[in-house]
Amino acid sequence: MHLEQFYEQMLPAIEKELESRVQLNDDERLADLHSMLRYHLGWEGPGAGPEATGKRIRPMLTLLTNAAAGGVWERGLPVAAAVELVHNFSLIHDDIQDNSELRRGRQTVWKIWGVAQAINAGDSLFSLAHLSLEHMTDLVTSEQKLKAGNVLRNASLTLTQGQFLDLDYEARGDLTVDSYWPMIQGKTASLIAACAELGAILAGSHDDIQAKYHDFGRYVGLAFQVHDDYLGIWGDAARTGKSAESDLLSGKKTLPILYGIDQQGEFAEKWDKGHVIAEMVPALVRSLEKDGAKEYTIEQVNQLSNQALEALGETGAAGEAQEALVELTEMLAKREH
Amino acid sequence: MHLEQFYEQMLPAIEKELESRVQLNDDERLADLHSMLRYHLGWEGPGAGPEATGKRIRPMLTLLTNAAAGGVWERGLPVAAAVELVHNFSLIHDDIQDNSELRRGRQTVWKIWGVAQAINAGDSLFSLAHLSLEHMTDLVTSEQKLKAGNVLRNASLTLTQGQFLDLDYEARGDLTVDSYWPMIQGKTASLIAACAELGAILAGSHDDIQAKYHDFGRYVGLAFQVHDDYLGIWGDAARTGKSAESDLLSGKKTLPILYGIDQQGEFAEKWDKGHVIAEMVPALVRSLEKDGAKEYTIEQVNQLSNQALEALGETGAAGEAQEALVELTEMLAKREH
Repeated sequence: MHLEQFYEQMLPAIEKELESRVQLNDDERLADLHSMLRYHLGWEGPGAGPEATGKRIRPMLTLLTNAAAGGVWERGLPVAAAVELVHNFSLIHDDIQDNSELRRGRQTVWKIWGVAQAINAGDSLFSLAHLSLEHMTDLVTSEQKLKAGNVLRNASLTLTQGQFLDLDYEARGDLTVDSYWPMIQGKTASLIAACAELGAILAGSHDDIQAKYHDFGRYVGLAFQVHDDYLGIWGDAARTGKSAESDLLSGKKTLPILYGIDQQGEFAEKWDKGHVIAEMVPALVRSLEKDGAKEYTIEQVNQLSNQALEALGETGAAGEAQEALVELTEMLAKREH
Repeated sequence: MHLEQFYEQMLPAIEKELESRVQLNDDERLADLHSMLRYHLGWEGPGAGPEATGKRIRPMLTLLTNAAAGGVWERGLPVAAAVELVHNFSLIHDDIQDNSELRRGRQTVWKIWGVAQAINAGDSLFSLAHLSLEHMTDLVTSEQKLKAGNVLRNASLTLTQGQFLDLDYEARGDLTVDSYWPMIQGKTASLIAACAELGAILAGSHDDIQAKYHDFGRYVGLAFQVHDDYLGIWGDAARTGKSAESDLLSGKKTLPILYGIDQQGEFAEKWDKGHVIAEMVPALVRSLEKDGAKEYTIEQVNQLSNQALEALGETGAAGEAQEALVELTEMLAKREH
């Protein structure tokens, strides 16, 4: 069975679990709040459908890891829902913080319902995420439940710390590539590491195997973010659902930009002049390429993906789900959006 | 021992526990995030000190209930910190949502650090709150820990639902006193109910006693919010730390305002004309009084406080901590800020 077949089995179960977990009580006064959450998750409103839900990579990682480590993946569904909801809570708040009007080609929650209610919708989703864990079957021991809670809540905290750095870096001019890694470790890799680790915890793996899956997830997360940074400059505008090259316009300190600054070459010279406007973007991209930033970024993605596969190999697991994790890692490093 | 002596014992322990729980790792890159949290909690920055920390009513309720129900209150400290941090997470986000520039006479977090980082500081505090629970001593059973987590996370969700209604009501003209109660049940009473319930859970009380303490906390919370609404119109401006009568200017649908609208009298007539400016406030207040809104509001506070004391009596507990809970209930209903 390949990744695609796992997706066919698991994805409908993930969507169903998510729908149950974001069900609010039937007080009709809360109907609009429920709609905000359902809209953001891609199930209702203009543009709803598979294109709007995202790829559900995080819950897939949890379920595949669980199966690879010898678990019964269906029992991991409440945890898979929890990680996806934590991710989506952070997206709702990110969009406010970045002033983003579009996500996956649709208007963002704050753009439709205003900032105040969007903050609150994110907060609701955060609570629902952590409540999701409580739907774990009684076949999971109390100790496993408490450990799973600890891993998810630590990842949630680290996520907000990475987000702090990301925002803090926007206004700063003194950053190098070294500043980059702790930021994406928090913003992206910690939750993805938790996804894999949680799958292993639920499967009842030994602590050292849990740690290997954690490392696997961490490298997947780092590779994922670096590739995202690549797409933020060299991705196809239409496919990313937002204007291409926007990372050069937004002030975000992504890896190719920090690498370009570090080189003190053509890019750095242009960049130092200050405020970037859309017309300057093509020349800046060419300078980045000339200074080696494109090559460096691709190399980092490949290296991190290889480190992920190495950690995965060290778990010693075999079987179709383990193979699907290899496939997922390779797919993420080559995706075009 | 009276409430004051309990405060003298418990408050320093609460502050110490809170400081430990909001400690971040020692990455100096996160120093500013840590400062935002420490500023909001009243420990540093301009105006830091006892006036800035707030009254810590929620953790006091948890510890006093714990002691009243036969527990060792020191063991409840991580839970007491958790409820206070949930409360403070919500305050940071509230201030953004309400566009409030001052809290307890000091600039709000968003006013100093901007909206984006303030959203994120709230999110960090929310994660830290839920992580606090994990510092419970091993003398607390896994089942008690899981139940405590469930109670706190459900209260957090209900809090966001109440906040949704509060924001939703601002723009609506079709509301009555009946709309009010579910809103404050979510916004205020659910967390205060959880504070008391958590104290009883940790003390190992029977389920029906836990439920009585929950009811006690719920009525305390409702009375607290109604009294807050009273102060929002009749409180002394200087004492509340924000401009008096602001509730008539902000569009908040507080109890006296909804009662006034329901009466279809002098207040309703003026109110229906639309946008209120500062100069209109004294006349609106007089109309509210003429239509009986002040009397009605005071009566509700008294009635809810009595219901709280009744539920407290039904727990059957006795002793100094139980007496201090009576004192706390009465103090909250009479406070002037």
